[in-house]
Amino acid sequence: MKPVKVGLLGLGTVGTGVVRIVEGNQEHLSSQVGSPIIIERIAVKNSEKARDIDVDASKITTDPWEVIRDPEIDVIVEVMGGINGTKEYILEALDRGKHIITANKDLMALYGSEILAKAQEKQCDVFYEASVAGGIPIIRTLIEGFSSDRITKIMGIVNGTTNYILTKMSQEGATYSDALKEAQDLGYAESDPTSDVEGLDAARKMTILGTLGFRTNVELQDVTVKGISGVSKEDIAFAKRLGYEMKLLGIAECKDEEFNISVQPTMIRSGHPIASVNGVFNAVYVYGEAVGETMFYGAGAGAMPTATSIVADLVAVIKNLKLGVNGLKQIIPYKTKKIKSDENIFYKNFLLLHVDDKAGVLAKITQVFAEYDVSLDSVVQQANPNNPDAEIIIVTHNASKASMDKVLRHFDDLNVIRRVKSHYRVEG
Amino acid sequence: MKPVKVGLLGLGTVGTGVVRIVEGNQEHLSSQVGSPIIIERIAVKNSEKARDIDVDASKITTDPWEVIRDPEIDVIVEVMGGINGTKEYILEALDRGKHIITANKDLMALYGSEILAKAQEKQCDVFYEASVAGGIPIIRTLIEGFSSDRITKIMGIVNGTTNYILTKMSQEGATYSDALKEAQDLGYAESDPTSDVEGLDAARKMTILGTLGFRTNVELQDVTVKGISGVSKEDIAFAKRLGYEMKLLGIAECKDEEFNISVQPTMIRSGHPIASVNGVFNAVYVYGEAVGETMFYGAGAGAMPTATSIVADLVAVIKNLKLGVNGLKQIIPYKTKKIKSDENIFYKNFLLLHVDDKAGVLAKITQVFAEYDVSLDSVVQQANPNNPDAEIIIVTHNASKASMDKVLRHFDDLNVIRRVKSHYRVEG
Repeated sequence: MKPVKVGLLGLGTVGTGVVRIVEGNQEHLSSQVGSPIIIERIAVKNSEKARDIDVDASKITTDPWEVIRDPEIDVIVEVMGGINGTKEYILEALDRGKHIITANKDLMALYGSEILAKAQEKQCDVFYEASVAGGIPIIRTLIEGFSSDRITKIMGIVNGTTNYILTKMSQEGATYSDALKEAQDLGYAESDPTSDVEGLDAARKMTILGTLGFRTNVELQDVTVKGISGVSKEDIAFAKRLGYEMKLLGIAECKDEEFNISVQPTMIRSGHPIASVNGVFNAVYVYGEAVGETMFYGAGAGAMPTATSIVADLVAVIKNLKLGVNGLKQIIPYKTKKIKSDENIFYKNFLLLHVDDKAGVLAKITQVFAEYDVSLDSVVQQANPNNPDAEIIIVTHNASKASMDKVLRHFDDLNVIRRVKSHYRVEG
Repeated sequence: MKPVKVGLLGLGTVGTGVVRIVEGNQEHLSSQVGSPIIIERIAVKNSEKARDIDVDASKITTDPWEVIRDPEIDVIVEVMGGINGTKEYILEALDRGKHIITANKDLMALYGSEILAKAQEKQCDVFYEASVAGGIPIIRTLIEGFSSDRITKIMGIVNGTTNYILTKMSQEGATYSDALKEAQDLGYAESDPTSDVEGLDAARKMTILGTLGFRTNVELQDVTVKGISGVSKEDIAFAKRLGYEMKLLGIAECKDEEFNISVQPTMIRSGHPIASVNGVFNAVYVYGEAVGETMFYGAGAGAMPTATSIVADLVAVIKNLKLGVNGLKQIIPYKTKKIKSDENIFYKNFLLLHVDDKAGVLAKITQVFAEYDVSLDSVVQQANPNNPDAEIIIVTHNASKASMDKVLRHFDDLNVIRRVKSHYRVEG
């Protein structure tokens, strides 16, 4: 049988994992697709670099275009990352009729619709399971497993770095900066951790999940984002006291054809399945009208888990190739994009206020909530030995984001409030 | 566009769910498959029965053969259950070139290989996502999501009834019989609960998961089965004290191309992701060499979750139909079946022994373990105020099943042991 030839762009840890799986599981793979799979050419940044695997030097090039333009190659696997260059490589490869597998969340979040449109025009497959939640087959699940259902909510722990940091803070009482430093020492966080800790990485993944879950063309700028750099030990201690864990959650909701998507540190009730997902693990909780609650858990990153998803995509693309049906099972968002207004986004809120320690303050504050029709679940006032101010801890019932914004603006003018120390979304 | 016509065998709760989803989500479904989906004929047991949905009376028949033989029908959805008749209906439908979707775990566990062989011969699809773990798309995940990986372990809570009973016993200290009665009152357990509580239902599902996970033809008789009817409140209290939860786990393991599959009440360490799956929920934990730990969680039964899986299969079958590729993506087990011998099956064991309360007993017992090379993790001897005998609680390190069987046989002849009160597998 004629072998299928693959071009690999990038030979970092994930690329190395792809080579390992394709070579190590060759019998298992070829029994599924009916022919051998050969990694024909590999584009690298530095051809002199020492590597963990033996690769025939004649396959290596430092020029990605050589791989893209090789007429022998059927499928391009892109694991270089970044958006500079990769978009052009992929569009050109599609123009040449090659199928694409990518782990590149940045690319898919920013240019997914353009790339998928080109793929449809050229009847090529573009698969990107590895771009969200590493080894967890969540994209397949949203496209195929729940094709029959209307998905109303997706909540994801889709960034392992921040989940590691929050787990350390929760389980060991570490400060944010100590936990971040440890994550950096272990290689879980980069030296510039901004993209992870400020929620941008999670936002890109939620853009992809939202598009697939709601069948509408979600763009990155539709996602409101807040990172974890402002989360304190104290906040986590309050969360625990109230029966919550603090997690950086991507939350995508869709009701009456209108959606909203956000990423922010969220207090989630301890009994919720996603609350006990710890360390660098990822999980995606999906709520469908018919199926109800489901959750998918696993390694969100790492060379081998990510490579598992890439090679599973490769098997799917090659099966399609043999059957002559590439590009025909594409999910094209078909619903008009409608974003919920702040009046229609509802959730519970946790607030920690530092206030003047004198009579009548609580009455003034609760009056503000009443004025904007935000009802309260619990209110606790306490003295803080480390602070001359009193502390008020408030958990609201479901309130619209618009009303809460009005409450917070009103607080700016209320001179008994020294400051709004913390404000978090509460789930579950 | 020419509509796709579906014949439905069975209109119980799941069948009703299928009708609801196909009719309620028609726009969403037809946007994916490119044509309307019509439920053309429905075979029922009793055509006079009052139903929750309006179905055109002309579609109803009490003769399944009328549905099977209708030349207009492209796809048969079988939700009658049972194996009497259903096998013949499905084989005949395949002979007539119709594609099959079934939720029937009994049928697939017992006759799956025969049915799939016929499907391959006729180039028809047979999809059965709903046969295991209701709304959780675990079959798709094993076939496609992890097609690249070598799966070495599958642990499943795949029976909601027993998980409900064990959860009640664990969380509320209920006895087995009280918890069973409550499950019956709530409709979670049948009046004859044997198939659930004795582990037979779980064994059928593990047969299906083992076949898909290990790509070898697992048969029901390859699964060793023990149910939960012997689990006492006391056992669960011991489990908790040692940091474990008691769960009815299906465990399928494969190493060096040899597998073993069992279903039994198992003590699983509380921190393990599957230990906190409670109530009627199901979860399947999958370990792959490359992907590592993953878990898939959701409703294991119920009309709508099960119907979600069935209609997702329907979407997949109709896409294949449009593309002309039905029957070509079948997973045919290709590995020779090799079952592990008891010498090669290793796990930890919990033992509760009732023994003579006199000096030297512990020495005699530990000597037996030493003789068969079973090393011990912990041993506790205690008096029991309700019992003239002393109690010895032992947790072993990993030991072969063969060695443990020898230890237990030796215990029969050891007159200081009054009885082996409990013996459980320990995981995690």
